[in-house]
Amino acid sequence: MHRVFRSRWLLSGVGVSLTVGIGAALARAGDRHNKAQDTSNGLLDRLPIIPIPSVDAATKITPYQPEQIAVNTSTDVTKYGLPSLSNIKSRESYVISYDPRNRTAAWVIEKLNAETLTGTSDRKLSEFKEDDSVHVYHRSSNADYKGSGFDRGHLAAAANHKWSQKAMDDTFYLSNVSPQNPQLNQHAWRNLEEYCRSLIKDYHNVFVCTGPLYLPQQEPDGKMYVKYQVLGKNHVAVPTHFFKILILEKARGDVELRSYVMPNMPIDEKIPLESFLVPIESIERASGLLFVPNIMKKTNSLKAITAGS
Amino acid sequence: MHRVFRSRWLLSGVGVSLTVGIGAALARAGDRHNKAQDTSNGLLDRLPIIPIPSVDAATKITPYQPEQIAVNTSTDVTKYGLPSLSNIKSRESYVISYDPRNRTAAWVIEKLNAETLTGTSDRKLSEFKEDDSVHVYHRSSNADYKGSGFDRGHLAAAANHKWSQKAMDDTFYLSNVSPQNPQLNQHAWRNLEEYCRSLIKDYHNVFVCTGPLYLPQQEPDGKMYVKYQVLGKNHVAVPTHFFKILILEKARGDVELRSYVMPNMPIDEKIPLESFLVPIESIERASGLLFVPNIMKKTNSLKAITAGS
Repeated sequence: MHRVFRSRWLLSGVGVSLTVGIGAALARAGDRHNKAQDTSNGLLDRLPIIPIPSVDAATKITPYQPEQIAVNTSTDVTKYGLPSLSNIKSRESYVISYDPRNRTAAWVIEKLNAETLTGTSDRKLSEFKEDDSVHVYHRSSNADYKGSGFDRGHLAAAANHKWSQKAMDDTFYLSNVSPQNPQLNQHAWRNLEEYCRSLIKDYHNVFVCTGPLYLPQQEPDGKMYVKYQVLGKNHVAVPTHFFKILILEKARGDVELRSYVMPNMPIDEKIPLESFLVPIESIERASGLLFVPNIMKKTNSLKAITAGS
Repeated sequence: MHRVFRSRWLLSGVGVSLTVGIGAALARAGDRHNKAQDTSNGLLDRLPIIPIPSVDAATKITPYQPEQIAVNTSTDVTKYGLPSLSNIKSRESYVISYDPRNRTAAWVIEKLNAETLTGTSDRKLSEFKEDDSVHVYHRSSNADYKGSGFDRGHLAAAANHKWSQKAMDDTFYLSNVSPQNPQLNQHAWRNLEEYCRSLIKDYHNVFVCTGPLYLPQQEPDGKMYVKYQVLGKNHVAVPTHFFKILILEKARGDVELRSYVMPNMPIDEKIPLESFLVPIESIERASGLLFVPNIMKKTNSLKAITAGS
C-alpha cells in the first residue's frame, strides 16, 4: 500500500484541523433569516420503524443468583425495545448504543430491581478504562478527561449494579461515560440516580435509559446553533444536556414513564427533580431516538408523567 | 394511554427549547484548560469491526439495460463496504446511512461508470421531497430550507444518474440533501462532482462516498468547540464541511483513493481541487466512520492520493 501524507493541510492527528488549510475565515455564510417555528406534532402520529428483539415479556424474577441474573439482565434489559440500532453492545449491566463521532454513548439502558441493587460490589475496585471494542479512532481515553474540568460521568450508574463486581466494573468503560459538570454529577444528577434506585420499592422493575443531548440555542443573530465543547486529543463531545428516561413497570403490566432532562451545568439541589420532567417526544426529537412506539408494543397502559401532573 | 403535557418547560414542539425552563444562563461550566494535542496514530493499527455484506467482487458490467443495471447498482455499490451500519437504506441510485439526530445523511455511496452517466433523465422532472421512510420527528422538509440562505445540496449528485429517471428522482429525497452554501454548491463543489464524473474515462468504476462533517474549531478561550447552525422547525444541521471519498477501480483490481474535504462556505474556484485533498483517516476520525479497513478487504493494492503527491 502506497501512502503519501505530504498534505498541505495541517492535521492535528485527529482530523479536526482540516479548516486550517482553508484559512482562518470559517465564519459560515448564508445569512438570511431562519425562523425557529413553534409547532407541535402528536406523540404517536406515525408508526415506529425500529424492530424490537423478541424478548419474553414475562421473564420471571429469580432470587439472587449471580449467573442467572447476569443472563436475565443482559437480555431482559431491552424488553421495551432499543431506541436506535446503531453500534449496539450488550454488557453485564447494560445495553449501549455507541456514538463514534462524539466518542460517547448515544444511550445506555439498564434494569434496576432489588436484586441488582443488592450485593457487596465495591466501586473502589473498579477503574475507568478505554473501551477497546471501539476502534481507536473513535474511542475516548482517560487522558482526554484529565485536567478538562469535567468529571467522567457514568451514564449507567455504578451504584445500580452492586449485584456483581463485573457488572459494576463494566459501568467504568469510558463508552458508558460522558464529560459531566462536576457539581451536576455530584449533586442534582446523583440525586436523580438515587431517586431511580428508590423507585424499586414501588415498582416491579425500573428500566432506566440515559444519554447525552446536544441541544441548539438561539444566538444574538436570531439563528439556532448547536454548540458543544470537545475534550482532549480524541475530541470527546461535552453534552449540553443529559436525559434520563424511567420506564416503571407495575405488577399488572401497566407502565409509567418519567423523562428528565438536566443541563450539563451546576444545578441548585433545592430545585425539585419534578422541575426537570419533560415530555418524552422532546427527547425523541432532539436525540434522534424513539422510545414510545416500542414501549407501546409491550403495554396497553402507558402513563407519561410530566411536570405539574 | 394517559398523557399529561402541562410541562413547566416551554417546548417549541421540536424539543430543543428545553433549556428555557432552566433559565438563560446556559454558559457551560468546567473551565480548566483543555489541551488540543498533536498526536498521530497509524492508519491501520487496528482491525476493522464493521462487517461487509457479501457482494460478488467480480460483478460484470452489462450494457445499458435499465432493470438489470438497477439491481447491479443497488448491490454492487457497497462493494468496498459500509462506512457504518446505522439506518441503512438502499435506493435506486445510492446506499445511504441516515443520521436522525442531524436530519441528514451520515454518508451516501454511489457507483459511477459510463452506464450510470448515460441516458435521457431530466432533473427538471425531479422534485425535492421529504423522505417518508424516516420518522416524522427526524425528517427534514422543504420548509426547513425555505428562506434559510442555504441550498438543498445533493450528496449523491443528480447528474450522476442519467441512466434512469427513478434513480435521478431518488437523489431528490431530502435525506440525500444537506444545507449547503449556494456559492459552494454551484461552483467549487459542482466542479468536484464534475471531476468525479470525468474520472470514468480513466477508471473501471468510480465509487463515490459523500457526507457532512461537523468539525471543531479552537475559540479565543483556547478550547475546542463544535458549532453548527440548525435550520427550520426540524432543526436540520448545517454541516461545517463536506467530504467526498473517491474509490477508483482500475482494471487489474488496483484501487486508488482520493479524499476531499471542503468547508461549507464560498470557495474561490481558482483554488485547484488538489488543495482539498486530505488523508482519509482525518475523515474517518472526524466522522466516526471507517473506510480503509473495508477497502483493504477487497484489494491488495491501495494507493491513497493526498495533496502534494
